[in-house]
Amino acid sequence: VPNNAPSLKKVVIVGVGLIGGSLGAAWRAASFATRIVGVETNPAAAAQALQLGLVDEISDTVPTDAQLIAICTPSDLVAEQVEMLASLRVPMFDVGSVKAPIIEALLSSGGVSPFFVPSHPIAGSDRSGPDAAHAELFAGATTVLTPLVSTDNKALQLVESAWLACGSEVTRLAPQAHDEMLAVTSHLPHLLAYVFMQQVDPQQLKYSGGGFRDFTRIAAANPELWWRILCMNRDQVLDAADQFTTHLQSFTAALRNNDEVAGLAALREAAQRRNQLDD
Amino acid sequence: VPNNAPSLKKVVIVGVGLIGGSLGAAWRAASFATRIVGVETNPAAAAQALQLGLVDEISDTVPTDAQLIAICTPSDLVAEQVEMLASLRVPMFDVGSVKAPIIEALLSSGGVSPFFVPSHPIAGSDRSGPDAAHAELFAGATTVLTPLVSTDNKALQLVESAWLACGSEVTRLAPQAHDEMLAVTSHLPHLLAYVFMQQVDPQQLKYSGGGFRDFTRIAAANPELWWRILCMNRDQVLDAADQFTTHLQSFTAALRNNDEVAGLAALREAAQRRNQLDD
Repeated sequence: VPNNAPSLKKVVIVGVGLIGGSLGAAWRAASFATRIVGVETNPAAAAQALQLGLVDEISDTVPTDAQLIAICTPSDLVAEQVEMLASLRVPMFDVGSVKAPIIEALLSSGGVSPFFVPSHPIAGSDRSGPDAAHAELFAGATTVLTPLVSTDNKALQLVESAWLACGSEVTRLAPQAHDEMLAVTSHLPHLLAYVFMQQVDPQQLKYSGGGFRDFTRIAAANPELWWRILCMNRDQVLDAADQFTTHLQSFTAALRNNDEVAGLAALREAAQRRNQLDD
Repeated sequence: VPNNAPSLKKVVIVGVGLIGGSLGAAWRAASFATRIVGVETNPAAAAQALQLGLVDEISDTVPTDAQLIAICTPSDLVAEQVEMLASLRVPMFDVGSVKAPIIEALLSSGGVSPFFVPSHPIAGSDRSGPDAAHAELFAGATTVLTPLVSTDNKALQLVESAWLACGSEVTRLAPQAHDEMLAVTSHLPHLLAYVFMQQVDPQQLKYSGGGFRDFTRIAAANPELWWRILCMNRDQVLDAADQFTTHLQSFTAALRNNDEVAGLAALREAAQRRNQLDD
Protein backbone atom coordinates (compact mmCIF):
# COMPACT_ATOMS: atom_id res chain seq x y z
CA VAL A 1 0.00 0.00 0.00
CA PRO A 2 1.37 3.44 -0.89
CA ASN A 3 2.01 5.47 2.27
CA ASN A 4 -0.23 8.26 1.09
CA ALA A 5 -3.25 6.01 0.51
CA PRO A 6 -6.31 7.40 2.31
CA SER A 7 -8.20 5.10 4.60
CA LEU A 8 -11.88 5.55 3.90
CA LYS A 9 -14.80 4.70 6.15
CA LYS A 10 -17.16 3.38 3.54
CA VAL A 11 -16.69 2.44 -0.11
CA VAL A 12 -19.32 0.90 -2.38
CA ILE A 13 -18.92 -1.56 -5.22
CA VAL A 14 -21.85 -1.83 -7.63
CA GLY A 15 -21.57 -5.26 -9.24
CA VAL A 16 -19.45 -7.81 -7.39
CA GLY A 17 -18.37 -10.07 -10.27
CA LEU A 18 -14.80 -10.70 -11.39
CA ILE A 19 -13.74 -7.03 -11.43
CA GLY A 20 -15.89 -5.67 -8.59
CA GLY A 21 -15.13 -8.66 -6.39
CA SER A 22 -11.40 -8.36 -7.08
CA LEU A 23 -11.53 -4.66 -6.17
CA GLY A 24 -13.13 -5.62 -2.86
CA ALA A 25 -10.49 -8.27 -2.17
CA ALA A 26 -7.63 -5.93 -3.12
CA TRP A 27 -8.98 -3.05 -1.04
CA ARG A 28 -9.46 -5.33 1.92
CA ALA A 29 -5.90 -6.64 1.60
CA ALA A 30 -4.63 -3.05 1.47
CA SER A 31 -6.85 -1.84 4.35
CA PHE A 32 -8.09 0.80 1.96
CA ALA A 33 -11.50 1.17 3.64
CA THR A 34 -13.10 0.31 6.96
CA ARG A 35 -16.24 -0.99 5.32
CA ILE A 36 -16.81 -2.33 1.82
CA VAL A 37 -20.44 -2.47 0.71
CA GLY A 38 -21.52 -4.47 -2.32
CA VAL A 39 -24.61 -3.69 -4.39
CA GLU A 40 -25.55 -6.69 -6.49
CA THR A 41 -28.87 -7.56 -8.14
CA ASN A 42 -27.98 -11.22 -8.71
CA PRO A 43 -28.72 -12.95 -5.34
CA ALA A 44 -26.37 -15.89 -5.98
CA ALA A 45 -23.46 -13.58 -6.82
CA ALA A 46 -24.25 -11.40 -3.80
CA ALA A 47 -24.24 -14.38 -1.44
CA GLN A 48 -21.03 -15.70 -2.92
CA ALA A 49 -19.21 -12.35 -2.68
CA LEU A 50 -20.23 -12.08 0.95
CA GLN A 51 -19.21 -15.63 1.74
CA LEU A 52 -15.83 -15.20 0.03
CA GLY A 53 -15.24 -12.02 2.05
CA LEU A 54 -14.96 -9.82 -1.04
CA VAL A 55 -17.33 -7.31 0.61
CA ASP A 56 -18.40 -6.73 4.22
CA GLU A 57 -22.09 -6.44 3.46
CA ILE A 58 -24.60 -6.44 0.63
CA SER A 59 -27.03 -3.57 0.26
CA ASP A 60 -29.99 -3.13 -2.09
CA THR A 61 -29.12 0.48 -2.77
CA VAL A 62 -26.01 2.67 -2.68
CA PRO A 63 -25.68 4.08 0.87
CA THR A 64 -25.72 7.89 0.93
CA ASP A 65 -22.68 8.01 3.22
CA ALA A 66 -20.44 6.29 0.66
CA GLN A 67 -17.12 8.07 0.13
CA LEU A 68 -16.25 6.31 -3.13
CA ILE A 69 -18.36 4.29 -5.57
CA ALA A 70 -16.97 1.71 -8.00
CA ILE A 71 -19.42 1.02 -10.83
CA CYS A 72 -18.44 -2.48 -11.97
CA THR A 73 -21.29 -3.21 -14.37
CA PRO A 74 -20.92 -3.94 -18.09
CA SER A 75 -19.89 -0.84 -20.09
CA ASP A 76 -23.31 -0.30 -21.65
CA LEU A 77 -24.96 0.07 -18.23
CA VAL A 78 -22.45 2.56 -16.82
CA ALA A 79 -23.97 5.83 -18.11
CA GLU A 80 -27.35 5.27 -16.46
CA GLN A 81 -25.67 4.33 -13.18
CA VAL A 82 -23.58 7.50 -13.24
CA GLU A 83 -26.68 9.61 -13.93
CA MET A 84 -28.56 7.91 -11.12
CA LEU A 85 -25.75 8.44 -8.61
CA ALA A 86 -24.65 11.95 -9.70
CA SER A 87 -26.80 13.72 -7.10
CA LEU A 88 -24.77 12.08 -4.28
CA ARG A 89 -21.76 14.20 -5.39
CA VAL A 90 -19.47 11.33 -4.35
CA PRO A 91 -16.32 10.37 -6.32
CA MET A 92 -17.11 7.41 -8.54
CA PHE A 93 -15.54 5.47 -11.36
CA ASP A 94 -16.40 2.67 -13.77
CA VAL A 95 -14.21 -0.17 -15.08
CA GLY A 96 -15.46 -0.51 -18.67
CA SER A 97 -13.08 -1.34 -21.50
CA VAL A 98 -14.71 1.29 -23.78
CA LYS A 99 -14.69 4.92 -22.65
CA ALA A 100 -15.80 7.46 -25.29
CA PRO A 101 -19.37 6.07 -25.76
CA ILE A 102 -20.02 6.29 -22.01
CA ILE A 103 -18.94 9.93 -21.96
CA GLU A 104 -20.90 10.69 -25.14
CA ALA A 105 -24.02 9.12 -23.66
CA LEU A 106 -23.68 11.26 -20.54
CA LEU A 107 -22.97 14.42 -22.56
CA SER A 108 -26.05 13.89 -24.67
CA SER A 109 -28.27 13.48 -21.62
CA GLY A 110 -27.39 16.46 -19.46
CA GLY A 111 -23.65 16.40 -18.93
CA VAL A 112 -20.93 14.40 -17.20
CA SER A 113 -20.79 14.62 -13.40
CA PRO A 114 -17.46 16.16 -12.32
CA PHE A 115 -17.30 13.39 -9.69
CA PHE A 116 -17.22 10.64 -12.30
CA VAL A 117 -13.70 9.49 -13.21
CA PRO A 118 -13.84 7.08 -16.19
CA SER A 119 -11.44 4.20 -15.51
CA HIS A 120 -10.31 0.98 -17.15
CA PRO A 121 -8.10 -1.56 -15.42
CA ILE A 122 -6.35 -3.59 -18.14
CA ALA A 123 -6.76 -6.87 -16.35
CA GLY A 124 -9.28 -9.63 -16.67
CA SER A 125 -9.84 -13.29 -17.13
CA ASP A 126 -11.75 -15.65 -19.36
CA ARG A 127 -13.56 -16.57 -16.13
CA SER A 128 -16.23 -14.36 -14.61
CA GLY A 129 -18.23 -13.99 -11.41
CA PRO A 130 -17.19 -13.52 -7.77
CA ASP A 131 -15.55 -16.94 -7.52
CA ALA A 132 -12.99 -15.86 -10.14
CA ALA A 133 -12.19 -12.70 -8.16
CA HIS A 134 -8.87 -12.34 -6.32
CA ALA A 135 -6.89 -9.60 -4.61
CA GLU A 136 -3.98 -9.78 -7.05
CA LEU A 137 -5.95 -9.25 -10.27
CA PHE A 138 -4.76 -5.64 -10.67
CA ALA A 139 -1.24 -6.08 -9.27
CA GLY A 140 1.22 -4.94 -11.90
CA ALA A 141 -1.57 -4.12 -14.37
CA THR A 142 -2.06 -0.71 -15.93
CA THR A 143 -5.25 1.21 -15.16
CA VAL A 144 -6.16 3.96 -17.58
CA LEU A 145 -8.12 7.01 -16.39
CA THR A 146 -9.79 9.18 -19.03
CA PRO A 147 -10.79 12.31 -17.06
CA LEU A 148 -12.38 15.34 -18.74
CA VAL A 149 -11.32 18.96 -18.22
CA SER A 150 -14.43 19.26 -16.04
CA THR A 151 -13.48 16.35 -13.78
CA ASP A 152 -13.11 17.31 -10.10
CA ASN A 153 -9.45 17.15 -9.14
CA LYS A 154 -10.04 15.66 -5.68
CA ALA A 155 -12.25 12.95 -7.16
CA LEU A 156 -9.52 12.22 -9.69
CA GLN A 157 -6.88 11.92 -6.97
CA LEU A 158 -9.07 9.67 -4.84
CA VAL A 159 -9.82 7.33 -7.73
CA GLU A 160 -6.15 7.23 -8.62
CA SER A 161 -5.26 6.30 -5.03
CA ALA A 162 -7.95 3.59 -5.09
CA TRP A 163 -6.22 1.94 -8.04
CA LEU A 164 -2.74 2.42 -6.62
CA ALA A 165 -3.96 0.66 -3.46
CA CYS A 166 -4.74 -2.37 -5.64
CA GLY A 167 -1.13 -2.50 -6.83
CA SER A 168 -2.03 -1.12 -10.25
CA GLU A 169 -0.01 1.40 -12.23
CA VAL A 170 -2.18 4.38 -13.22
CA THR A 171 -1.94 6.34 -16.45
CA ARG A 172 -4.17 8.88 -18.23
CA LEU A 173 -5.36 9.01 -21.80
CA ALA A 174 -8.00 10.85 -23.80
CA PRO A 175 -11.13 8.65 -24.08
CA GLN A 176 -10.86 8.31 -27.87
CA ALA A 177 -7.15 7.43 -27.70
CA HIS A 178 -7.96 4.79 -25.10
CA ASP A 179 -10.66 3.23 -27.25
CA GLU A 180 -8.45 3.14 -30.37
CA MET A 181 -5.65 1.53 -28.39
CA LEU A 182 -7.86 -1.05 -26.73
CA ALA A 183 -9.44 -1.96 -30.06
CA VAL A 184 -5.99 -3.22 -31.04
CA THR A 185 -4.66 -4.60 -27.75
CA SER A 186 -7.83 -6.25 -26.45
CA HIS A 187 -10.97 -6.13 -28.58
CA LEU A 188 -9.41 -7.35 -31.84
CA PRO A 189 -7.55 -10.28 -30.20
CA HIS A 190 -10.83 -11.41 -28.63
CA LEU A 191 -12.62 -11.10 -31.97
CA LEU A 192 -9.87 -13.06 -33.76
CA ALA A 193 -9.79 -15.80 -31.13
CA TYR A 194 -13.57 -16.19 -31.27
CA VAL A 195 -13.55 -16.27 -35.08
CA PHE A 196 -10.71 -18.80 -35.11
CA MET A 197 -12.54 -21.12 -32.70
CA GLN A 198 -15.52 -21.21 -35.09
CA GLN A 199 -13.23 -22.88 -37.59
CA VAL A 200 -11.99 -25.59 -35.24
CA ASP A 201 -13.81 -28.90 -35.41
CA PRO A 202 -14.35 -30.13 -31.81
CA GLN A 203 -12.77 -33.44 -32.90
CA GLN A 204 -9.56 -31.54 -33.62
CA LEU A 205 -9.23 -30.32 -30.02
CA LYS A 206 -7.43 -33.53 -29.16
CA TYR A 207 -4.64 -32.51 -31.52
CA SER A 208 -3.98 -29.17 -29.87
CA GLY A 209 -1.02 -28.23 -27.74
CA GLY A 210 -0.12 -25.49 -25.30
CA GLY A 211 0.22 -22.86 -28.03
CA PHE A 212 -3.35 -23.50 -29.17
CA ARG A 213 -4.58 -23.27 -25.58
CA ASP A 214 -2.84 -19.96 -25.01
CA PHE A 215 -3.96 -18.51 -28.34
CA THR A 216 -7.61 -19.42 -27.86
CA ARG A 217 -8.00 -18.88 -24.10
CA ILE A 218 -9.73 -15.51 -24.52
CA ALA A 219 -12.35 -17.15 -26.74
CA ALA A 220 -13.72 -18.76 -23.56
CA ALA A 221 -14.69 -15.31 -22.26
CA ASN A 222 -18.34 -14.38 -21.75
CA PRO A 223 -19.96 -14.04 -25.22
CA GLU A 224 -22.76 -11.67 -24.13
CA LEU A 225 -20.31 -9.31 -22.42
CA TRP A 226 -17.99 -9.33 -25.40
CA TRP A 227 -20.71 -8.74 -27.97
CA ARG A 228 -21.61 -5.59 -26.02
CA ILE A 229 -17.98 -4.43 -25.83
CA LEU A 230 -17.43 -5.01 -29.55
CA CYS A 231 -20.63 -3.10 -30.38
CA MET A 232 -19.75 -0.18 -28.13
CA ASN A 233 -16.35 0.19 -29.81
CA ARG A 234 -17.64 -0.87 -33.23
CA ASP A 235 -15.89 1.67 -35.48
CA GLN A 236 -12.47 1.27 -33.88
CA VAL A 237 -12.77 -2.51 -33.84
CA LEU A 238 -13.81 -2.68 -37.50
CA ASP A 239 -10.87 -0.41 -38.41
CA ALA A 240 -8.51 -2.68 -36.50
CA ALA A 241 -10.00 -5.76 -38.20
CA ASP A 242 -9.53 -4.13 -41.63
CA GLN A 243 -5.89 -3.45 -40.80
CA PHE A 244 -5.48 -7.05 -39.71
CA THR A 245 -6.98 -8.30 -42.98
CA THR A 246 -4.50 -6.17 -44.93
CA HIS A 247 -1.56 -7.65 -42.99
CA LEU A 248 -3.00 -11.15 -43.38
CA GLN A 249 -3.38 -10.80 -47.15
CA SER A 250 0.13 -9.49 -47.45
CA PHE A 251 1.58 -12.39 -45.45
CA THR A 252 -0.42 -15.12 -47.21
CA ALA A 253 0.69 -13.61 -50.55
CA ALA A 254 4.30 -13.97 -49.43
CA LEU A 255 3.65 -17.57 -48.39
CA ARG A 256 1.83 -18.38 -51.64
CA ASN A 257 4.68 -16.91 -53.70
CA ASN A 258 7.40 -18.50 -51.57
CA ASP A 259 8.70 -14.96 -50.96
CA GLU A 260 11.10 -15.75 -48.13
CA VAL A 261 12.43 -12.21 -47.85
CA ALA A 262 9.01 -10.68 -47.19
CA GLY A 263 7.63 -13.61 -45.21
CA LEU A 264 10.58 -13.99 -42.91
CA ALA A 265 10.81 -10.22 -42.37
CA ALA A 266 7.19 -10.20 -41.19
CA LEU A 267 7.71 -13.13 -38.80
CA ARG A 268 10.91 -11.62 -37.44
CA GLU A 269 9.34 -8.21 -36.85
CA ALA A 270 6.42 -9.86 -35.03
CA ALA A 271 8.64 -12.08 -32.87
CA GLN A 272 10.99 -9.23 -32.04
CA ARG A 273 8.04 -7.10 -30.94
CA ARG A 274 6.46 -9.87 -28.87
CA ASN A 275 9.76 -10.53 -27.17
CA GLN A 276 9.62 -7.03 -25.70
CA LEU A 277 6.97 -8.42 -23.36
CA ASP A 278 8.68 -10.36 -20.64
CA ASP A 279 6.74 -13.60 -20.50
CA VAL B 1 6.75 -45.67 -17.04
CA PRO B 2 4.50 -48.31 -18.58
CA ASN B 3 5.47 -51.76 -17.29
CA ASN B 4 6.05 -53.06 -20.78
CA ALA B 5 8.55 -50.33 -21.71
CA PRO B 6 11.74 -51.86 -23.06
CA SER B 7 15.00 -50.79 -21.52
CA LEU B 8 17.43 -50.13 -24.31
CA LYS B 9 21.21 -50.05 -24.15
CA LYS B 10 21.81 -47.13 -26.46
CA VAL B 11 19.52 -44.54 -27.99
CA VAL B 12 20.59 -41.59 -30.13
CA ILE B 13 19.10 -38.13 -30.40
CA VAL B 14 20.07 -36.10 -33.46
CA GLY B 15 19.55 -32.44 -32.52
CA VAL B 16 19.40 -31.69 -28.79
CA GLY B 17 17.30 -28.51 -28.81
CA LEU B 18 13.92 -28.06 -27.13
CA ILE B 19 12.40 -31.29 -28.46
CA GLY B 20 15.48 -33.50 -28.62
CA GLY B 21 16.69 -32.29 -25.23
CA SER B 22 13.28 -32.89 -23.68
CA LEU B 23 13.23 -36.41 -25.11
CA GLY B 24 16.59 -37.06 -23.45
CA ALA B 25 15.37 -35.69 -20.12
CA ALA B 26 12.12 -37.68 -20.29
CA TRP B 27 13.85 -40.92 -21.27
CA ARG B 28 16.37 -40.48 -18.49
CA ALA B 29 13.61 -39.86 -15.96
CA ALA B 30 11.87 -43.02 -17.19
CA SER B 31 15.07 -45.12 -17.28
CA PHE B 32 14.20 -45.87 -20.89
CA ALA B 33 17.79 -46.42 -21.98
CA THR B 34 21.15 -47.14 -20.37
CA ARG B 35 22.96 -44.61 -22.54
CA ILE B 36 21.61 -41.56 -24.37
CA VAL B 37 23.88 -40.20 -27.08
CA GLY B 38 23.36 -36.74 -28.58
CA VAL B 39 24.48 -35.75 -32.06
CA GLU B 40 24.56 -31.97 -32.36
CA THR B 41 26.42 -29.78 -34.84
CA ASN B 42 26.05 -26.59 -32.76
CA PRO B 43 28.91 -26.79 -30.19
CA ALA B 44 27.21 -24.43 -27.70
CA ALA B 45 23.98 -26.45 -27.75
CA ALA B 46 25.97 -29.70 -27.45
CA ALA B 47 27.87 -28.45 -24.40
CA GLN B 48 24.69 -27.17 -22.79
CA ALA B 49 22.77 -30.41 -23.34
CA LEU B 50 25.64 -32.36 -21.81
CA GLN B 51 25.92 -30.00 -18.85
CA LEU B 52 22.18 -30.10 -18.21
CA GLY B 53 22.28 -33.90 -18.26
CA LEU B 54 19.88 -34.19 -21.19
CA VAL B 55 22.26 -36.68 -22.81
CA ASP B 56 25.08 -38.84 -21.49
CA GLU B 57 27.52 -38.02 -24.25
CA ILE B 58 27.88 -36.08 -27.46
CA SER B 59 29.06 -37.83 -30.61
CA ASP B 60 29.98 -36.42 -34.03
CA THR B 61 28.22 -39.24 -35.81
CA VAL B 62 25.39 -41.66 -35.11
CA PRO B 63 26.93 -44.76 -33.43
CA THR B 64 26.28 -47.94 -35.40
CA ASP B 65 25.17 -49.82 -32.28
CA ALA B 66 22.23 -47.46 -31.69
CA GLN B 67 18.96 -49.28 -31.03
CA LEU B 68 16.71 -46.28 -31.66
CA ILE B 69 17.35 -42.93 -33.34
CA ALA B 70 15.33 -39.77 -32.73
CA ILE B 71 15.77 -37.26 -35.55
CA CYS B 72 14.97 -33.95 -33.88
CA THR B 73 15.98 -31.55 -36.65
CA PRO B 74 13.68 -29.05 -38.40
CA SER B 75 11.15 -30.77 -40.69
CA ASP B 76 12.87 -29.79 -43.92
CA LEU B 77 16.08 -31.58 -42.91
CA VAL B 78 14.44 -34.86 -41.88
CA ALA B 79 14.29 -36.62 -45.27
CA GLU B 80 18.02 -36.40 -45.89
CA GLN B 81 18.77 -37.64 -42.35
CA VAL B 82 16.48 -40.63 -42.86
CA GLU B 83 18.15 -41.46 -46.17
CA MET B 84 21.57 -41.15 -44.60
CA LEU B 85 20.70 -43.45 -41.69
CA ALA B 86 18.54 -45.98 -43.56
CA SER B 87 21.42 -48.43 -44.10
CA LEU B 88 21.75 -48.91 -40.31
CA ARG B 89 18.32 -50.66 -40.36
CA VAL B 90 17.62 -49.24 -36.89
CA PRO B 91 14.17 -47.98 -35.81
CA MET B 92 14.07 -44.19 -36.13
CA PHE B 93 11.55 -41.40 -35.98
CA ASP B 94 11.37 -37.67 -36.53
CA VAL B 95 9.39 -35.01 -34.60
CA GLY B 96 8.39 -32.61 -37.39
CA SER B 97 5.01 -30.89 -37.39
CA VAL B 98 4.51 -31.58 -41.11
CA LYS B 99 4.48 -35.20 -42.29
CA ALA B 100 3.37 -35.71 -45.91
CA PRO B 101 6.19 -33.67 -47.56
CA ILE B 102 8.82 -35.70 -45.69
CA ILE B 103 7.32 -38.95 -46.92
CA GLU B 104 6.90 -37.57 -50.45
CA ALA B 105 10.54 -36.46 -50.51
CA LEU B 106 11.66 -39.95 -49.46
CA LEU B 107 9.34 -41.66 -51.96
CA SER B 108 10.66 -39.53 -54.81
CA SER B 109 14.27 -40.39 -53.95
CA GLY B 110 14.27 -44.16 -53.65
CA GLY B 111 11.61 -45.07 -51.10
CA VAL B 112 10.83 -44.81 -47.41
CA SER B 113 12.86 -46.99 -45.05
CA PRO B 114 10.56 -49.47 -43.25
CA PHE B 115 12.45 -48.56 -40.06
CA PHE B 116 11.39 -44.90 -40.24
CA VAL B 117 8.27 -44.11 -38.17
CA PRO B 118 7.11 -40.53 -38.86
CA SER B 119 6.12 -38.92 -35.54
CA HIS B 120 4.89 -35.62 -34.27
CA PRO B 121 4.59 -34.79 -30.56
CA ILE B 122 2.01 -32.01 -30.22
CA ALA B 123 3.97 -30.13 -27.61
CA GLY B 124 6.30 -27.21 -27.82
CA SER B 125 7.16 -23.81 -26.51
CA ASP B 126 7.84 -20.33 -27.79
CA ARG B 127 11.30 -20.92 -26.33
CA SER B 128 13.90 -23.07 -28.07
CA GLY B 129 17.26 -24.68 -27.40
CA PRO B 130 18.45 -27.16 -24.76
CA ASP B 131 17.91 -24.74 -21.87
CA ALA B 132 14.16 -24.75 -22.61
CA ALA B 133 14.09 -28.57 -22.55
CA HIS B 134 12.44 -30.44 -19.68
CA ALA B 135 11.37 -33.99 -18.87
CA GLU B 136 7.66 -33.10 -18.65
CA LEU B 137 7.26 -31.50 -22.08
CA PHE B 138 5.43 -34.51 -23.52
CA ALA B 139 3.51 -35.53 -20.39
CA GLY B 140 -0.19 -35.52 -21.23
CA ALA B 141 0.48 -34.40 -24.81
CA THR B 142 -0.66 -36.34 -27.86
CA THR B 143 1.96 -37.75 -30.21
CA VAL B 144 0.77 -38.62 -33.70
CA LEU B 145 2.45 -41.42 -35.65
CA THR B 146 1.88 -41.55 -39.41
CA PRO B 147 3.22 -45.00 -40.39
CA LEU B 148 2.97 -46.36 -43.93
CA VAL B 149 1.76 -49.83 -44.90
CA SER B 150 5.43 -50.65 -45.48
CA THR B 151 6.52 -49.59 -41.98
CA ASP B 152 8.15 -52.36 -39.97
CA ASN B 153 5.84 -53.42 -37.16
CA LYS B 154 8.56 -53.88 -34.55
CA ALA B 155 9.97 -50.43 -35.34
CA LEU B 156 6.47 -49.01 -34.97
CA GLN B 157 6.00 -50.68 -31.59
CA LEU B 158 9.38 -49.50 -30.33
CA VAL B 159 8.75 -45.90 -31.37
CA GLU B 160 5.33 -46.04 -29.76
CA SER B 161 6.86 -47.29 -26.51
CA ALA B 162 9.47 -44.52 -26.68
CA TRP B 163 6.69 -41.92 -26.68
CA LEU B 164 4.67 -43.69 -24.02
CA ALA B 165 7.78 -43.67 -21.82
CA CYS B 166 7.70 -39.84 -22.04
CA GLY B 167 4.16 -39.77 -20.68
CA SER B 168 2.64 -38.98 -24.06
CA GLU B 169 -0.55 -40.42 -25.46
CA VAL B 170 0.05 -41.98 -28.87
CA THR B 171 -2.36 -41.99 -31.79
CA ARG B 172 -2.09 -42.76 -35.49
CA LEU B 173 -3.23 -40.77 -38.51
CA ALA B 174 -2.61 -40.77 -42.24
CA PRO B 175 0.13 -38.22 -43.08
CA GLN B 176 -2.19 -36.01 -45.14
CA ALA B 177 -4.90 -36.04 -42.43
CA HIS B 178 -2.27 -35.06 -39.88
CA ASP B 179 -1.06 -32.14 -41.97
CA GLU B 180 -4.60 -30.84 -42.61
CA MET B 181 -5.40 -31.04 -38.92
CA LEU B 182 -2.20 -29.35 -37.80
CA ALA B 183 -2.69 -26.56 -40.34
CA VAL B 184 -5.77 -25.63 -38.30
CA THR B 185 -4.68 -26.45 -34.75
CA SER B 186 -1.10 -25.18 -34.88
CA HIS B 187 0.15 -23.60 -38.09
CA LEU B 188 -2.75 -21.16 -38.63
CA PRO B 189 -2.74 -19.93 -35.00
CA HIS B 190 0.98 -19.20 -35.30
CA LEU B 191 0.42 -17.39 -38.59
CA LEU B 192 -2.43 -15.31 -37.11
CA ALA B 193 -0.49 -14.42 -33.97
CA TYR B 194 2.53 -13.33 -36.04
CA VAL B 195 0.33 -11.27 -38.37
CA PHE B 196 -1.48 -9.68 -35.45
CA MET B 197 1.80 -8.66 -33.79
CA GLN B 198 2.80 -6.80 -36.94
CA GLN B 199 -0.14 -4.50 -36.32
CA VAL B 200 0.72 -3.71 -32.71
CA ASP B 201 2.69 -0.54 -32.13
CA PRO B 202 5.42 -1.28 -29.55
CA GLN B 203 4.15 1.72 -27.58
CA GLN B 204 0.83 -0.07 -27.17
CA LEU B 205 2.41 -3.02 -25.37
CA LYS B 206 2.05 -1.11 -22.12
CA TYR B 207 -1.73 -1.26 -22.54
CA SER B 208 -1.90 -5.01 -22.85
CA GLY B 209 -3.22 -7.46 -20.29
CA GLY B 210 -3.02 -11.18 -19.67
CA GLY B 211 -5.36 -11.99 -22.57
CA PHE B 212 -3.06 -10.22 -25.01
CA ARG B 213 -0.05 -12.07 -23.59
CA ASP B 214 -1.72 -15.44 -23.95
CA PHE B 215 -3.02 -14.70 -27.45
CA THR B 216 0.36 -13.52 -28.77
CA ARG B 217 2.74 -15.87 -26.91
CA ILE B 218 3.23 -18.14 -29.95
CA ALA B 219 4.35 -15.11 -31.99
CA ALA B 220 7.56 -15.18 -29.95
CA ALA B 221 8.44 -18.56 -31.47
CA ASN B 222 11.48 -18.94 -33.74
CA PRO B 223 10.70 -17.11 -37.05
CA GLU B 224 13.13 -19.13 -39.18
CA LEU B 225 11.72 -22.44 -37.94
CA TRP B 226 8.15 -21.29 -38.48
CA TRP B 227 8.73 -19.94 -41.98
CA ARG B 228 10.00 -23.42 -42.90
CA ILE B 229 7.01 -25.13 -41.30
CA LEU B 230 4.52 -22.82 -43.03
CA CYS B 231 6.24 -23.38 -46.38
CA MET B 232 6.31 -27.17 -45.97
CA ASN B 233 2.56 -27.21 -45.28
CA ARG B 234 1.81 -24.31 -47.62
CA ASP B 235 -1.35 -25.57 -49.35
CA GLN B 236 -3.09 -26.69 -46.16
CA VAL B 237 -2.11 -23.51 -44.32
CA LEU B 238 -3.36 -21.28 -47.15
CA ASP B 239 -6.65 -23.22 -47.22
CA ALA B 240 -7.01 -22.76 -43.46
CA ALA B 241 -6.22 -19.04 -43.79
CA ASP B 242 -8.88 -18.71 -46.51
CA GLN B 243 -11.43 -20.37 -44.26
CA PHE B 244 -10.46 -18.02 -41.47
CA THR B 245 -10.92 -14.99 -43.73
CA THR B 246 -14.41 -16.20 -44.64
CA HIS B 247 -15.37 -16.53 -40.96
CA LEU B 248 -13.79 -13.15 -40.20
CA GLN B 249 -15.72 -11.40 -42.98
CA SER B 250 -18.94 -12.97 -41.82
CA PHE B 251 -18.40 -11.87 -38.23
CA THR B 252 -17.33 -8.32 -39.05
CA ALA B 253 -20.41 -8.02 -41.29
CA ALA B 254 -22.59 -8.97 -38.32
CA LEU B 255 -20.79 -6.42 -36.17
CA ARG B 256 -21.06 -3.70 -38.82
CA ASN B 257 -24.80 -4.37 -39.26
CA ASN B 258 -25.43 -4.67 -35.52
CA ASP B 259 -26.77 -8.17 -36.25
CA GLU B 260 -26.91 -9.44 -32.68
CA VAL B 261 -28.47 -12.79 -33.59
CA ALA B 262 -25.64 -13.76 -35.95
CA GLY B 263 -22.87 -12.08 -33.95
CA LEU B 264 -23.82 -13.53 -30.61
CA ALA B 265 -24.38 -16.99 -32.11
CA ALA B 266 -20.83 -16.96 -33.46
CA LEU B 267 -19.33 -15.87 -30.13
CA ARG B 268 -21.37 -18.44 -28.21
CA GLU B 269 -20.40 -21.28 -30.54
CA ALA B 270 -16.73 -20.32 -30.21
CA ALA B 271 -16.83 -20.01 -26.41
CA GLN B 272 -18.75 -23.25 -26.02
CA ARG B 273 -16.18 -25.05 -28.15
CA ARG B 274 -13.21 -23.52 -26.32
CA ASN B 275 -14.73 -24.49 -23.00
CA GLN B 276 -14.42 -28.14 -24.01
CA LEU B 277 -10.72 -27.74 -23.31
CA ASP B 278 -10.16 -27.93 -19.59
CA ASP B 279 -7.89 -25.01 -18.85
